[in-house]
Amino acid sequence: MRSQTSKRTGEWKSRIASELIEILGTDAVISSEDELIAYESDGLTGYRVKPVFVVLPSSTEQVSQVVKLCNREEMPFVPRGAGTGLSGGALPSREGIVVSLSRMNRILEVDIPNRVVVVEPGVVNISVTNAVSAEGFYYAPDPSSQIVCTIGGNVAENSGGVHCLKYGVTTNHVLGVEMVLPDGAIVKLGGMTLESFGYDLLSLVVGSEGLLGIVTKVFLRIIKKPQMVKTLFASFERIEDAGASVSAIISSGVIPAGMEIMDNLSINAVESTVGAGYPTDAGAILLVELDGPGAEVNVQTPTVSEILKGNGAIEIKVAVDENERQLFWKGRKSAFAAMGRISPGYYVQDGVIPRSSLARVLGEIGELGKRYGLRVANVFHAGDGNLHPLVLYDPEIKGESEKAEELSGEILRVCVDAGGSITGEHGVGFDKKRFLPLMFSEQEIDTMNLVRCAFDEKGLCNPGKVFPTPRTCVEPGMQNHSSKPPPKEMGEFF
Amino acid sequence: MRSQTSKRTGEWKSRIASELIEILGTDAVISSEDELIAYESDGLTGYRVKPVFVVLPSSTEQVSQVVKLCNREEMPFVPRGAGTGLSGGALPSREGIVVSLSRMNRILEVDIPNRVVVVEPGVVNISVTNAVSAEGFYYAPDPSSQIVCTIGGNVAENSGGVHCLKYGVTTNHVLGVEMVLPDGAIVKLGGMTLESFGYDLLSLVVGSEGLLGIVTKVFLRIIKKPQMVKTLFASFERIEDAGASVSAIISSGVIPAGMEIMDNLSINAVESTVGAGYPTDAGAILLVELDGPGAEVNVQTPTVSEILKGNGAIEIKVAVDENERQLFWKGRKSAFAAMGRISPGYYVQDGVIPRSSLARVLGEIGELGKRYGLRVANVFHAGDGNLHPLVLYDPEIKGESEKAEELSGEILRVCVDAGGSITGEHGVGFDKKRFLPLMFSEQEIDTMNLVRCAFDEKGLCNPGKVFPTPRTCVEPGMQNHSSKPPPKEMGEFF
Repeated sequence: MRSQTSKRTGEWKSRIASELIEILGTDAVISSEDELIAYESDGLTGYRVKPVFVVLPSSTEQVSQVVKLCNREEMPFVPRGAGTGLSGGALPSREGIVVSLSRMNRILEVDIPNRVVVVEPGVVNISVTNAVSAEGFYYAPDPSSQIVCTIGGNVAENSGGVHCLKYGVTTNHVLGVEMVLPDGAIVKLGGMTLESFGYDLLSLVVGSEGLLGIVTKVFLRIIKKPQMVKTLFASFERIEDAGASVSAIISSGVIPAGMEIMDNLSINAVESTVGAGYPTDAGAILLVELDGPGAEVNVQTPTVSEILKGNGAIEIKVAVDENERQLFWKGRKSAFAAMGRISPGYYVQDGVIPRSSLARVLGEIGELGKRYGLRVANVFHAGDGNLHPLVLYDPEIKGESEKAEELSGEILRVCVDAGGSITGEHGVGFDKKRFLPLMFSEQEIDTMNLVRCAFDEKGLCNPGKVFPTPRTCVEPGMQNHSSKPPPKEMGEFF
Repeated sequence: MRSQTSKRTGEWKSRIASELIEILGTDAVISSEDELIAYESDGLTGYRVKPVFVVLPSSTEQVSQVVKLCNREEMPFVPRGAGTGLSGGALPSREGIVVSLSRMNRILEVDIPNRVVVVEPGVVNISVTNAVSAEGFYYAPDPSSQIVCTIGGNVAENSGGVHCLKYGVTTNHVLGVEMVLPDGAIVKLGGMTLESFGYDLLSLVVGSEGLLGIVTKVFLRIIKKPQMVKTLFASFERIEDAGASVSAIISSGVIPAGMEIMDNLSINAVESTVGAGYPTDAGAILLVELDGPGAEVNVQTPTVSEILKGNGAIEIKVAVDENERQLFWKGRKSAFAAMGRISPGYYVQDGVIPRSSLARVLGEIGELGKRYGLRVANVFHAGDGNLHPLVLYDPEIKGESEKAEELSGEILRVCVDAGGSITGEHGVGFDKKRFLPLMFSEQEIDTMNLVRCAFDEKGLCNPGKVFPTPRTCVEPGMQNHSSKPPPKEMGEFF
């Protein structure tokens, strides 16, 4: 079983530091209190944990050696990308090591004929597109944070983006990974071809939030840039009409590259910051991006325009050039940051609902906001039903942050009741693990835990995340789906 | 540990039969030798195993009760769909039960607004499309066996089809499943929305070849029928030119719905059987199907036509109406069956290769055929690199079937060496498990086995499949990736 905290003496720490330096070199091991501060949090408000070490490996072999050391010492380790997950997935373990993949940032291979790019996990999302853009290709998943977030983090969270309605999320674009398992073994899952067989361990790893090992190499699928892109902007008096337009467009057989809705509060936040030219009196705006062969887009554009008109759009604009298109998107892309201008604090939620419940759920969120006396801004990937309600509050007002947190939970409950999910792209991490039982039965959570245990019997790899109550890997004779509470163990690392 | 064979007395058998009848009713339990014959094989040449019982449950609850009984009695159980897998995935276990899902064949829900159809596993693939066709929708994955094969089997094998180049395979169209785990627990993975979170257990189950439990309900995504479909037929003197055309079409930015190649031998087999009007002197033919909005297809058709011409096509035809289109496809769809006309026996292989290696690998397969003195016909999903080499042999000639089997193995080796895979859509099953080490290291196979053990600690669920050597789930203290050979255990069921 895991060793006691008492073991972590100063002598122990120096010994481990020496070993780490031997594996990685002096400049790749951080242990001074000052420098560790940068790794205390991953942007999740209110949670900070200082690790014992941060290491910056440069190769798969180094990662493997560090993980083997962690195993021997029964020391938890937390992989970290750019720290933009917002759900606490990269929050360090006390007593543990943070394995930052930031130095493993090389693009290893660009294979245009097979449409594959092989990268290390620390490569920034946009860099993949930049590497193949001149050849007419791009990497489709585009989180709003794409100029910062890394492919390793995208794989951990199965990130989406504004274009995932048409092109799918990260898991649809990862052909394979090389990874270091929690016992230090190096394996390759998937590879150069789309089709594989047997257990789809690759899909299991994509979206596993760093609990099954450390991904050290990623085979990404790149796709041809569309011949034409057209972006439509529409404003509405009521957000429900924007929602109805989304359903109507899909029903017509058109699959836009992306459809994004922003409500009045979000519009005003954006206009007071970046000035994208959105009408501040509109109830909502809807952006529809069409892409594909010119012949197709030219036919779809008037079709979509008609549908928008038929669903009560006040104003409809089609971007005349790339400059205007960028302006349309500028507001959407800066929406989260702009919230700071209209509220000193906010919680971002990440619920998913079936598209057909959009209008109803938006109504219920509005009602909940009124009941709690808090403003809720809505900026979201409408096409795939991925909501991002932003619950605004003032941390200076006593009790308001708790109220905001409670309201956020209520919103997730509404999403789940509508047949949806508590997270679309930010992951469960540390923040949302308490909501897991809203969606899964005890047996379902136990099944997930059994799979985790298959990879990480000692529970050292990013412990304390995703699972709502501490869960351990007990003897195999146990009834798989016992309802007995597991012994307190994993919680000790927080 | 597992009980001994000696336990399976006549008395034991009658007792279990009574219990099964109590759960399922008399007409749903088969135990007479005559009737069991129908379940001895799943179409894999040369392997037949008689199970002790075949049961035909009608509900999830019944499946769960049967599985719990199997657990108590430590009796292996094998789920079975339509038995069209051809890799021996549904081959019974001696000492075991076959759970045939053929009575769970109801379409439970058609939800057009959310584009979801909920079915039981015994529903035939084509029935899903039939249920939504009037509304203008269809279910995309279309194995050649789609008028026979069932959704449960499609989920087990992650089946593809001629249109999976553009639309993806089964895993891209399954939103969720309800399943009975190997301990009898009923869980739901995924559901009504596209996005989910945490461990992607759903993708793990799709393609797991019936080793992780029995799927009892499937949530399928349906898509809008394309506005226009055009099918091009082209003949070539050399198969390499057909292969080069495929690469050139993809490079041009056009993604056809499907691209299929047949070589001279296949053409002649087909022409001597169904008479699709293919030129019997051509080295190869290529079918290219384009679909989408009319505006797009009308532009793509001449583009593709030009590319075919530029790559040496002798004759190019565009189907003028649905009748001619069906005729083009008729030959392709009856190719496997037609082989019987030119050869008394054949092995179907199912290798996958990167598209860019098509021409080279086809050449190597030709060479291998010459070396072994056997004819190899090639009919395949060219667009996604999924080969189906058919090795022809005469079972009456002593040693020829062994030679054919050996040649099949050599072909798979060539596919793996090219960076591909030993199976695209038929699964590893019983037939190809010996080839697993061609693709995976001992550590990688151990990792898969650990995941299997997380679901099925006792190894009762479809044992003896996929894994090359008997593998068991030993005590958790074991080094995850030990290279020790596991104790003989699972092999006993064969």
